[in-house]
Amino acid sequence: MRMMIIGAAGMVGRKLTQRLLAGHADVVTPTELILYDMFDAPAPDTDLPCTILSGNIADKAESEKLAAFHPDVIFHLASIVSGEAEVEFDKGWQINAHGGWQLLEALRAQHDASGGTYRAKVIFTSSIAVFGPPFPDAIDDDFLCAPQTSYGAQKAMVELLLADYSRKGFVDGMSIRLPTVCVRPGKPNLAASSFFSGIIREPLNGVEALLPVSDEVRHWHASPRSAAGFLTHAAGLDFNRLEGRRSLNMPGLSCTVAEQIEALRSLAGEKVVSLIKPQADEHIIKIVAGWPRNFTAARATALGFSSEKSFTDIIKVYLDDDFEGTL
Amino acid sequence: MRMMIIGAAGMVGRKLTQRLLAGHADVVTPTELILYDMFDAPAPDTDLPCTILSGNIADKAESEKLAAFHPDVIFHLASIVSGEAEVEFDKGWQINAHGGWQLLEALRAQHDASGGTYRAKVIFTSSIAVFGPPFPDAIDDDFLCAPQTSYGAQKAMVELLLADYSRKGFVDGMSIRLPTVCVRPGKPNLAASSFFSGIIREPLNGVEALLPVSDEVRHWHASPRSAAGFLTHAAGLDFNRLEGRRSLNMPGLSCTVAEQIEALRSLAGEKVVSLIKPQADEHIIKIVAGWPRNFTAARATALGFSSEKSFTDIIKVYLDDDFEGTL
Repeated sequence: MRMMIIGAAGMVGRKLTQRLLAGHADVVTPTELILYDMFDAPAPDTDLPCTILSGNIADKAESEKLAAFHPDVIFHLASIVSGEAEVEFDKGWQINAHGGWQLLEALRAQHDASGGTYRAKVIFTSSIAVFGPPFPDAIDDDFLCAPQTSYGAQKAMVELLLADYSRKGFVDGMSIRLPTVCVRPGKPNLAASSFFSGIIREPLNGVEALLPVSDEVRHWHASPRSAAGFLTHAAGLDFNRLEGRRSLNMPGLSCTVAEQIEALRSLAGEKVVSLIKPQADEHIIKIVAGWPRNFTAARATALGFSSEKSFTDIIKVYLDDDFEGTL
Repeated sequence: MRMMIIGAAGMVGRKLTQRLLAGHADVVTPTELILYDMFDAPAPDTDLPCTILSGNIADKAESEKLAAFHPDVIFHLASIVSGEAEVEFDKGWQINAHGGWQLLEALRAQHDASGGTYRAKVIFTSSIAVFGPPFPDAIDDDFLCAPQTSYGAQKAMVELLLADYSRKGFVDGMSIRLPTVCVRPGKPNLAASSFFSGIIREPLNGVEALLPVSDEVRHWHASPRSAAGFLTHAAGLDFNRLEGRRSLNMPGLSCTVAEQIEALRSLAGEKVVSLIKPQADEHIIKIVAGWPRNFTAARATALGFSSEKSFTDIIKVYLDDDFEGTL
C-alpha cells in the first residue's frame, strides 16, 4: 500500500504517520509513505521508502504532482484552521475548499488516464464545524449541515465533492468528521478550539492557561490517538458499507469545561488546576456558541470506530503519549 | 428595485419575469429588469427599462459584467438540468457549481469596492435533488443533504457558498429548494424529471407520452406559477427571519404517478389518459429512485410560501396559464 498524507507535518498528520508505522494488528500498514505539507514533515523512523515533499496545496500543479504518485490511500488532512479561515476569507476558501476540489480533479485525471484502473482511496478529515445551531440534545446521523463558520462551510463543500467523485467512481472516498482533538500536544494554534487543550496542557506543564468561555460550555472531544485511529480504521474499511453516505460523525466524548477541569483535578491536583485563569473572549465565545455539543455517532460506532469514554481517559492519553514532564 | 434574472430565458425565468411585471399586490415590483441567459430571453411586454444579455455564466468575466450592474435583487436560476449534469460531469460542475461561486465572488468584489454599501439580495433556485435516500416518510427541515446526483451535489455546494457569503455580509442570500415543477409547458427537456410533466402535457395536447417509471412512484410537485411565486415571495422576505439557515424546502404536493393520472382522467377523460404509454427506462428509474417523495416544509409555510393542495389544481394551473388547445 502506497500511502500519502497531505498535511503530514501537522499534529494529527504526525500522529497518523506514527500509527501507520507502529505495526498495530488492526492497522492496514503502508509499504511506502509520501508525506506532504506546507513545510517538510519530520522524517519518520522507518526503513520503508518515504518521500517528504512540501508546497502549497492551493496550487493546481501541486495536486497534479501528488496525484501522479498514484497513492493507494490518500489521507487529506491539510487545511487552515477555523479561527484563521474566519479572518482570512480568501485563504480559507482557496486552501480548504478549492484545494480539495483541485486534488479530486487531479485524481480524476489520473483515473481517466489509467483507463479507469487507478482509483485512490481518499480519507478526508472533516469536522463537526459542518453543523450549526439550533441543535438537538444529541446530533444524529441524519442531521443537516448548516455551518456557521467559513471553515465549516469549506469542510462541508469538500464532503459534497468527495461524495460525488466517489459516486461516479473516480475515487473511493470518505469524510471523517473529527470531534475537537484534545489534548493537543505542543503550542496553542489559531483554532478557536485551541483553549480546550490549552486549559489541560499548559497547567500540566506548569504554565498558566486562559479560559475564554464559561465552564458550562459543553463540547465534543476525542484524543489525538483516537483521531489517528479513526483514520487508520477508515483505511481498512470497505466504503461500500457507507451505502452512499460517505460523511460520518466520529464517536467522541461530550463533556463541559467544568468536567474537563474536574478530570484534571482528579489526576493532577488543585495546584495544577489553579493555573487556569478565566478571561472572557467575545470572539471565541461567539464562534464556540455555534458549535455542537453532543452526538449519537451511531453509524460510526456500528462501523467499528471508537474513542475514549471519559475525559480522564483523554488526559491519560496525553500523559502517556505526549507529556514530557513529571506530575 | 433593479432586478436581474440569470437564467431568464428558461421556463421558470420567463414565468418569473411575467409575474414580476404583472402588478400583483404581494409582489415587490422592479423598476428596471436585466435578463440574462445563454441566449437572449424574449423581450417582456413592459415600459420599464429592460436590458437583455446573453453569455456563458461559467466565464468569470460574465459574472463580473453582471455584478457591475449592482442589481438590488438577483434571481440566480441558471443551471444545466439533472440528466445533463449526470452525463456531462465537467459541464455540470463548471456551470452549476463553479459558475455560482464566481458570481458570488464578483458580487463580493462589488461589495468591497463600494466600501460595503452594495449588498445584493441573491435568490438561488436549489432543488430537492440535494437530498438522498433513505428518506423518512416526510423530510423535515433538519434533514441532511446527501445528494445522489451531481446536479444535487452542485446545488448543495452553491447553497453552502451562498450561506457563508451571506453570513459574512457580502450578499444577502437565500436558497429556494424547488419541488419538481409540473406541469412544465413547452417541450420535454433533458431533466430526468421531464416525464412528470410530459405524461400530463402531451396527452392534453393529443400527443402520446412515455411513462418511464412505475405509476407507484411518489414525488413532490409544484406548478410553474407556484415556483415563480416562491421567488417573488423571497424577494419581499426579510432574510433575517431565516436565522442563519438560508436554504429552505419549499411547500409542494406529494402524490404518486397514479394519482397524477387519476387527476388527468377527472379533468380530461379516458381518451386523453390512454395516450400515456408505459415504457420502462432503467436510467430514469435509477435517478428517480434516489429522489425524495414528501416534505413537511414547515419553515417555508410559516414564512408565507405556499403552493397547490391537489394535483387537479396543478393541472388547472397549466390549463389556465399555458394550454393553447381545447379540451
